[in-house]
Amino acid sequence: MSQTQPVRNVLYIMCDQLRRDYLSCYGHAHLQTPNIDRLAAAGVRFSRAYTQGTICGPSRMSAYTGRYVSSHQVAWNAVPLPLEELTIGDYLRPHGIRTALVGKTHATPNLDALQRLNIDPDSTQAQPLNEVGFEAYVRHDGLYPDSPLFDDKRESAPYTHYLREQGYTGTNPWHEWANAAEGENGEVLSGWHMRNAGLPARVAEEHSETVYTTDRAIDFIREQAGQPWCLHLSYIKPHWPYIAPAPYHALYGVEHIQAPIQPGQASDHPVYQAFRQHQESLNFARDEVRLTVIPTYMGLIKQIDDQLGRLFDFLQSNDRWDDTLIVFTSDHGDFLGDHFLGEKEFLLEPAVGIPLIVRDPRPSADISRGTVDERLVETIDALPTFLDALGLPAAEHRLEGRSLIPLLHSEHSAWRRYAIAEYDYAFQAPARERLGQPIDRCRMTMVCSERWKYLAYDGFRPQLFDLENDPQELHDLGADPAYAQVRETHLGYLFEWLRGLKRRTTISHTEINVRGQRFRYGEPQAEKIVQIGVW
Amino acid sequence: MSQTQPVRNVLYIMCDQLRRDYLSCYGHAHLQTPNIDRLAAAGVRFSRAYTQGTICGPSRMSAYTGRYVSSHQVAWNAVPLPLEELTIGDYLRPHGIRTALVGKTHATPNLDALQRLNIDPDSTQAQPLNEVGFEAYVRHDGLYPDSPLFDDKRESAPYTHYLREQGYTGTNPWHEWANAAEGENGEVLSGWHMRNAGLPARVAEEHSETVYTTDRAIDFIREQAGQPWCLHLSYIKPHWPYIAPAPYHALYGVEHIQAPIQPGQASDHPVYQAFRQHQESLNFARDEVRLTVIPTYMGLIKQIDDQLGRLFDFLQSNDRWDDTLIVFTSDHGDFLGDHFLGEKEFLLEPAVGIPLIVRDPRPSADISRGTVDERLVETIDALPTFLDALGLPAAEHRLEGRSLIPLLHSEHSAWRRYAIAEYDYAFQAPARERLGQPIDRCRMTMVCSERWKYLAYDGFRPQLFDLENDPQELHDLGADPAYAQVRETHLGYLFEWLRGLKRRTTISHTEINVRGQRFRYGEPQAEKIVQIGVW
Repeated sequence: MSQTQPVRNVLYIMCDQLRRDYLSCYGHAHLQTPNIDRLAAAGVRFSRAYTQGTICGPSRMSAYTGRYVSSHQVAWNAVPLPLEELTIGDYLRPHGIRTALVGKTHATPNLDALQRLNIDPDSTQAQPLNEVGFEAYVRHDGLYPDSPLFDDKRESAPYTHYLREQGYTGTNPWHEWANAAEGENGEVLSGWHMRNAGLPARVAEEHSETVYTTDRAIDFIREQAGQPWCLHLSYIKPHWPYIAPAPYHALYGVEHIQAPIQPGQASDHPVYQAFRQHQESLNFARDEVRLTVIPTYMGLIKQIDDQLGRLFDFLQSNDRWDDTLIVFTSDHGDFLGDHFLGEKEFLLEPAVGIPLIVRDPRPSADISRGTVDERLVETIDALPTFLDALGLPAAEHRLEGRSLIPLLHSEHSAWRRYAIAEYDYAFQAPARERLGQPIDRCRMTMVCSERWKYLAYDGFRPQLFDLENDPQELHDLGADPAYAQVRETHLGYLFEWLRGLKRRTTISHTEINVRGQRFRYGEPQAEKIVQIGVW
Repeated sequence: MSQTQPVRNVLYIMCDQLRRDYLSCYGHAHLQTPNIDRLAAAGVRFSRAYTQGTICGPSRMSAYTGRYVSSHQVAWNAVPLPLEELTIGDYLRPHGIRTALVGKTHATPNLDALQRLNIDPDSTQAQPLNEVGFEAYVRHDGLYPDSPLFDDKRESAPYTHYLREQGYTGTNPWHEWANAAEGENGEVLSGWHMRNAGLPARVAEEHSETVYTTDRAIDFIREQAGQPWCLHLSYIKPHWPYIAPAPYHALYGVEHIQAPIQPGQASDHPVYQAFRQHQESLNFARDEVRLTVIPTYMGLIKQIDDQLGRLFDFLQSNDRWDDTLIVFTSDHGDFLGDHFLGEKEFLLEPAVGIPLIVRDPRPSADISRGTVDERLVETIDALPTFLDALGLPAAEHRLEGRSLIPLLHSEHSAWRRYAIAEYDYAFQAPARERLGQPIDRCRMTMVCSERWKYLAYDGFRPQLFDLENDPQELHDLGADPAYAQVRETHLGYLFEWLRGLKRRTTISHTEINVRGQRFRYGEPQAEKIVQIGVW
């Protein structure tokens, strides 16, 4: 733990589905994000940050628990987190830090566990459990399809109420106004349909999700005044539906789109080939789709950047810029047609690489301000970083990530040699059946060292990419005999990682030490406890 | 699942610290255990059964959850089981099977988790959680030292009340009568002190723990009549204190003791050498100690066998012999000086090998009755076996053991190639400090194939024993270059085992299948749900 004054607050900003290369500080030639760049200039930009989960649920649960997917067990979306997995709120709230959410978490109530323990899922007690430890100041998961499965969620959603208060009518204003355009004859053109991505969403920009989310974050911070807080500001965009309010729908055009990564000779790996058959992959492999969607994707990011400018200005003019640790990131990326894939369910850079910018306001971090750190960092490093910066005890028996504060303070210490990500496609029945895999043998694991990305598969050969010479991951060396040694080394890392998972979480290291002192063998014991092996 | 009529009841008999070679059916030349032998003749005796944990807490939690120690996380004694680890009672009780305990479980209430979830640890609701899912018909953990730490437990213990009712007075009748002898001058000679092992315990045999436990088991079974039940009959003996009531203290003498396993050239492995320094090891390495203790150890087992005779007679004369699955086992063994060690904290045969006898009363098991099965079986196979025999659904997403019923019914199926056990000495401060290991790098793991026992250590070279040519584990081949390939194969098994641990326990395979059907990509959907990647 650093020996400096702790920060007072933590602002944990997360976008959804934001690729790291869609920010100007990360190199985008056309998408200018001056406010996020401003944060990078005032902090450290991590160029090799990785999510542990790729899709929303697993990624976010890793962020909120500081543990790998194999540990927290939320292997896919809508899988409940075990109640005993401690989250950010569990660590911070006992120390008087109000830990709140504005936006998305993808938390799924663990109804089975609650029922077994006789806890009413609608009770006050269950609320933080249902919200993965956050006080849901505003819960907005930003997905309210027209379906009975979502009706209750939509009706209770703060954003639905907000839109109706602003005069937007209808059964599902989130869809009909914020995520749909208007056709020539006044018909609703759904944002679910990518062909409509280039049209402006019907909602006025000031009432859009991104602005609303920022408004409420500012409300929360203002409300807290000088009282310590941790705010998870969790934007749903640029996650689909890909549709943006004017003027953001039209800021970018075809000429601003990065060339796609489309290998001349794509890998013949069976799992990759199966994923290419998914509907979103087939669609995004078409130029028409990419060229329609990506400018809007960019516009949504631009809008976030504008709003963050507003937020940062507010922090600065309200004395919060210098007592708040700010972390900016994304839960995962988006293929957008790269590798002839859509969505994010594959462990290549466009999906598993994330932006990560950390601003520690304290003088001890001045030494690194404005620099780029290329070390391998993981989403699960966030929670340990918060604890460190806040001066709170680390929970070594549970947390699998590491504090980034020593990196920011240029304290040299041995760092991890590889980053890990996991994906389980058991839930994707078409892929599972196409590949003929049993339901518990559908996992892929990324072991990414400084130079190499190794992808292990249940039941299939691995994949291997030389990120130094082939940063676009065009050449799969997974079956090339010349790279057997490299593969073996990384398989060894996978083994080492598995052996290092923290599986003794119900007792702290401190308590183990205390007990060790009490039961010393062969020493006179103040209390005659259990006398083992005494003659 | 077998297609035969299910059994009605399950009787899960567990002794504590009983080595498998201390029964006549397992080959002991002098200790005759005709009743346990009778069970073996009426069922299957497994000659290669292994515990997953070696010491009481971890071993038993594996038995009760059907999961490895790395999964249930109870790495040592008095470590709480996560509340969400489902136990035998959780699986059976919903089907109307009264699931009860008579005897020891070593369950430790998970006070932290209960507190966090606002569950009063003294409430009715907490009771099954505190008792790892059992209805505590009689909880008797058989360890009530003279210490304030144990006063409440002792005072509330049924056995304490029972002894007082029989007229045994004093603050701690468990100690002063059942586990102590009387000196020439009427002084109490504690059973904690092994020098007193050869003396008779003061309690009358009919009031001793083993008889009391059997009495209460018979009471329970009689009470249940024809209603289905699962009884965990869990004897504390022959676990220390090593002291037996007359006549059992005197049935055996020095001439009945098996020759100890004392390698001429003991392994120089640092962890082994550290464990040799423990007080119980130093003591048991002395002939005087072994020769005093072992006859009493044998006497305690003899008493258990006599009592099981009583119990089996009762089952037969009360129509329970033919509708009850009976499993007889031990949680772990006892070195008793073998390898110059005491206790059980090391993964060699005397500690990690356990007796396991299974009697399935149904005709489909006739084919294997009276046979010996040499396949590698694990303690965690018990719970899946119960579910199978009772005709209840398996929980593939949680259970890591396998049903033994197909083995009993001679249904040929691929079986495991190696058995696993784990031990974590972080809690043994002297050993940890002597070896200079960090608190999370104190683990040893056994990978035992048909022929080889491979022991992996955090931070140290492995050990390797050729059980076919060296069943007494005298020759550690762990550093011998000639066996590099064998070691590598077993290291590969360890890796495979780690990758196979079940880490997606909050959602069943059935539910995953249901969801997979609902969210088929590219197919017309009855309800317009989340429309991903639709053009």
